Amino acid sequence: MTKPFKRIALVGRRHPSPEVIESVKQIISLLEQNGYDYAVENDTVSSCDFKTDKLFAIDALGDEWDLLIAIGGDGCLLHAAHAAVQANTPVLGINRGRLGFLTDISPQEITTRLLKILQGDYITEPRFMLHATLGKTELGIALNDIVLIPGKMPHMVSFITHIDHKLVASQRADGIIITTPTGSTAYALAGGGPILHPHLNAVALVPMMPHTLSSRPIVVNADVTIEIEVTEDNEYAPCVSLDGLEPLCLNIGDKILIRKHKDTLNLIHPTDYHYYHTLRSKLGWEKSQTA
Amino acid sequence: MTKPFKRIALVGRRHPSPEVIESVKQIISLLEQNGYDYAVENDTVSSCDFKTDKLFAIDALGDEWDLLIAIGGDGCLLHAAHAAVQANTPVLGINRGRLGFLTDISPQEITTRLLKILQGDYITEPRFMLHATLGKTELGIALNDIVLIPGKMPHMVSFITHIDHKLVASQRADGIIITTPTGSTAYALAGGGPILHPHLNAVALVPMMPHTLSSRPIVVNADVTIEIEVTEDNEYAPCVSLDGLEPLCLNIGDKILIRKHKDTLNLIHPTDYHYYHTLRSKLGWEKSQTA
Amino acid sequence: MTKPFKRIALVGRRHPSPEVIESVKQIISLLEQNGYDYAVENDTVSSCDFKTDKLFAIDALGDEWDLLIAIGGDGCLLHAAHAAVQANTPVLGINRGRLGFLTDISPQEITTRLLKILQGDYITEPRFMLHATLGKTELGIALNDIVLIPGKMPHMVSFITHIDHKLVASQRADGIIITTPTGSTAYALAGGGPILHPHLNAVALVPMMPHTLSSRPIVVNADVTIEIEVTEDNEYAPCVSLDGLEPLCLNIGDKILIRKHKDTLNLIHPTDYHYYHTLRSKLGWEKSQTA
Amino acid sequence: MTKPFKRIALVGRRHPSPEVIESVKQIISLLEQNGYDYAVENDTVSSCDFKTDKLFAIDALGDEWDLLIAIGGDGCLLHAAHAAVQANTPVLGINRGRLGFLTDISPQEITTRLLKILQGDYITEPRFMLHATLGKTELGIALNDIVLIPGKMPHMVSFITHIDHKLVASQRADGIIITTPTGSTAYALAGGGPILHPHLNAVALVPMMPHTLSSRPIVVNADVTIEIEVTEDNEYAPCVSLDGLEPLCLNIGDKILIRKHKDTLNLIHPTDYHYYHTLRSKLGWEKSQTA
Repeated sequence: MTKPFKRIALVGRRHPSPEVIESVKQIISLLEQNGYDYAVENDTVSSCDFKTDKLFAIDALGDEWDLLIAIGGDGCLLHAAHAAVQANTPVLGINRGRLGFLTDISPQEITTRLLKILQGDYITEPRFMLHATLGKTELGIALNDIVLIPGKMPHMVSFITHIDHKLVASQRADGIIITTPTGSTAYALAGGGPILHPHLNAVALVPMMPHTLSSRPIVVNADVTIEIEVTEDNEYAPCVSLDGLEPLCLNIGDKILIRKHKDTLNLIHPTDYHYYHTLRSKLGWEKSQTA
Repeated sequence: MTKPFKRIALVGRRHPSPEVIESVKQIISLLEQNGYDYAVENDTVSSCDFKTDKLFAIDALGDEWDLLIAIGGDGCLLHAAHAAVQANTPVLGINRGRLGFLTDISPQEITTRLLKILQGDYITEPRFMLHATLGKTELGIALNDIVLIPGKMPHMVSFITHIDHKLVASQRADGIIITTPTGSTAYALAGGGPILHPHLNAVALVPMMPHTLSSRPIVVNADVTIEIEVTEDNEYAPCVSLDGLEPLCLNIGDKILIRKHKDTLNLIHPTDYHYYHTLRSKLGWEKSQTA
Repeated sequence: MTKPFKRIALVGRRHPSPEVIESVKQIISLLEQNGYDYAVENDTVSSCDFKTDKLFAIDALGDEWDLLIAIGGDGCLLHAAHAAVQANTPVLGINRGRLGFLTDISPQEITTRLLKILQGDYITEPRFMLHATLGKTELGIALNDIVLIPGKMPHMVSFITHIDHKLVASQRADGIIITTPTGSTAYALAGGGPILHPHLNAVALVPMMPHTLSSRPIVVNADVTIEIEVTEDNEYAPCVSLDGLEPLCLNIGDKILIRKHKDTLNLIHPTDYHYYHTLRSKLGWEKSQTA
Repeated sequence: MTKPFKRIALVGRRHPSPEVIESVKQIISLLEQNGYDYAVENDTVSSCDFKTDKLFAIDALGDEWDLLIAIGGDGCLLHAAHAAVQANTPVLGINRGRLGFLTDISPQEITTRLLKILQGDYITEPRFMLHATLGKTELGIALNDIVLIPGKMPHMVSFITHIDHKLVASQRADGIIITTPTGSTAYALAGGGPILHPHLNAVALVPMMPHTLSSRPIVVNADVTIEIEVTEDNEYAPCVSLDGLEPLCLNIGDKILIRKHKDTLNLIHPTDYHYYHTLRSKLGWEKSQTA
């Protein structure tokens, strides 16, 4: 048994669905019945049909909470992760979304599994994040991926990639995805990227619909510095999106630097969590095999 | 020998490069020396360093010309094709672009090959086009492809495809490419679509980075009606782009209908043109084999 | 209502599983109760725990039967198809296999659906087949695919493809799959080939793990002649397999010719059969969408 | 400058082409002119049109040589590597083959570059290898890949993969490739695997033409133990091939264990060697970009 969690912060997605609200209420009820200290994120509550004065702001998350529970899909967990990693707070996901690679607990399991986890029956899994800068400007951090996208569709992006100051490729494509192992089962997978085991200290560079037919995803050590340069021949300057959030638009000639983030997110799993089981289940491998 | 061409219209791309201008001048000189009747498209001339009063407007192209010569890349030829198909004028491409699947004649070959073609030493190859409507609104025609793209990146598009009123799939993806055989070696190829021989009466539906990992390109008869419906669960309404032109933005609930266009573009090739030779050469198959 | 079937031939797979035998018995019982004339294929019966003197040999299938029912997986239906197309007998598949793109009726539906079909409530769908020759030698016919494979693993195959006497490509690969629309959802799909709608008069050439990274599947009109030449630089001569059957081994320098077969197989479907529904269901598209 | 090489061993491929023999002679001449101690591998000489009594057997390679020069393609270098790693001798490749990811020096550069390398002007790059066992039987080592292949074509292989005793997947496919970073640009790349940077301590599992369409390559830490189990439902037992060598045939129920090999191969490169440059050049990225 590991250290129990006593003070619990809850966050749903910005415009929570009735299903998310239902799970938030269920968890609050469970926490109250068992005497836990808790608070709910402002925006989550504001869209709900209940009131509470136990509130916190996600952007001001400090070290006052032992655990952040994210209720929703992987998008919600990504949002929570950005705040949690800075506050050094571990994160547990309750799945109210589509796939849920990151959100282990299904709504049906809240009653049976959540208390056990809070009591110390859990696994902590560190997941590294990426960090992007443009000159001296911080562009932000990403648990899943950093994606170069067209500033205007349907226009290609033209860019040059260097790794540790060495030229990798000059490419024309719909963009490029720089993914962590955590993000390798998300957008990058749709782009033909490989699955990277979460314990691998590696990132993959996955070109999106590249013009050069012999382009392939490349996997490199996560400790490298990746530079993406927006070349002069772009008719429109492209943008960059971190974890699928609002894109930041770039200028011709900009060079983004992508490095491993100094802080690590701690994901909380039930003790019977197995990565490969999640893969098989979420990617439909089991179904196809027994068919 | 087939019917010679006597009256020749020339069109370059909108902002012609010095290379395009050079080829335009060379062709004009050749036509004048040999007593051909000719005119140059307005926009092409306006960016050039020469003057002529033999002008025409691409949008008003009528049946007064026997042949439209497009000087530039495949983008330029697509632009020319839209006007030419309405005027029932055949098109010949001079390659001043990157790849040039559609533009057979290299600048070096203008002197040796162009006159022979004008004298009747050529092949006519019909290429069918697509046609898109939204209710009673004409969205336009396409020689290469009709592409559903996100209205705002990096947001997925959610859409339902019907073919001849039968449900094909409900999908979440970066979009979908409906391609002719002509477009199958363009954008769709980067998306994992197959190469369709130009004489095949078929279109391919190629999902772009689809969420469902078992999604695959589907090839259907070109005489079907394809309906793409923008479903209610899109956070942002997607757009549609025909032949890579300025996208037309859609509304939630819109249903685009895509059908074969009634008119056919006639591409002119030298008599030694071979489709598979173009494939091998443009896709780098030959190089790899001899390496 | 179309013409009813009166005389019914049944065939299972060579070493029928208990499940196949169960379905064979159920169908026999149904046919007897309703006064149908029927016979069971020799090999199917020989492995079963029942006796009957109503027998036929699959290789001697003549025009004495109105319908051939194949009980098993797609492999069983392929086997039945080879005999049925020569006898001009339509084929209905009962699914006792893994996937069953070709076998519409599930065992649970035998009682409810089979009699209706026999009474004339069905759709006939023609599916074209391929035909391979080597010089004057007939290599056989295929409903799904003709596949060039290594004579000895793990050795590449080196071959040259011509279509209608025009050079397509000189390739080094694990082999090549020439697939009909019917076979496009079988082996070729695992090799990255497109799905071809069954009503499309086209075949796809799908290279298997090609050395040249820019190789792509090509779809051509089904009326062409495809020549595959085994080149001199093969260390071991490759083999060719039709519909996954026992491979025929070739010699260096051999040229296989593949053409559309003169006869067409008639597949029988229930009247509510929809091709795209089968696709969605068998390829797991529906599950993924609702997840 | 690093330590110079004084005693040089040369090996060509088993049946050396005239080009290989030419390069062998050129190198011998260069070594003699410059007073180096050298020997040529038995089999290489036996096929040549020259005689020498300075011979060695590749299987008995000891520590008497400072450098093993492999003249041929990547296949030749793989062969050399198996001997060299056991003798702890570094390897330099002279490219006389098709692609040559591992053989840096072109025949034209022998005169200009080889002496500089021998004098100490080189880079040493360690490349890890894999090691396979079946129970207590050593199956061998591999610099590129360990591949499970059908025992009889065209039959699928059915197998179960465990990593560190955890179930990864139960699959039906043409086989599976377990590749090192070194092998990631060889056979695995044709199977859709990612490029792994040589300094990455990782292996990729790449299924070959998998039946389950959502199967994807997986990259894991190279320190894991991978178990491939041949399941009972295989009609024919599959085989395993290490670095493309003669396959070893397995039995139903066999479990192969694949681990990182204890010894590391040292590849010698010229000092201006850049991995990404090799990638761009060998995969044709540069050509396509400038086209």
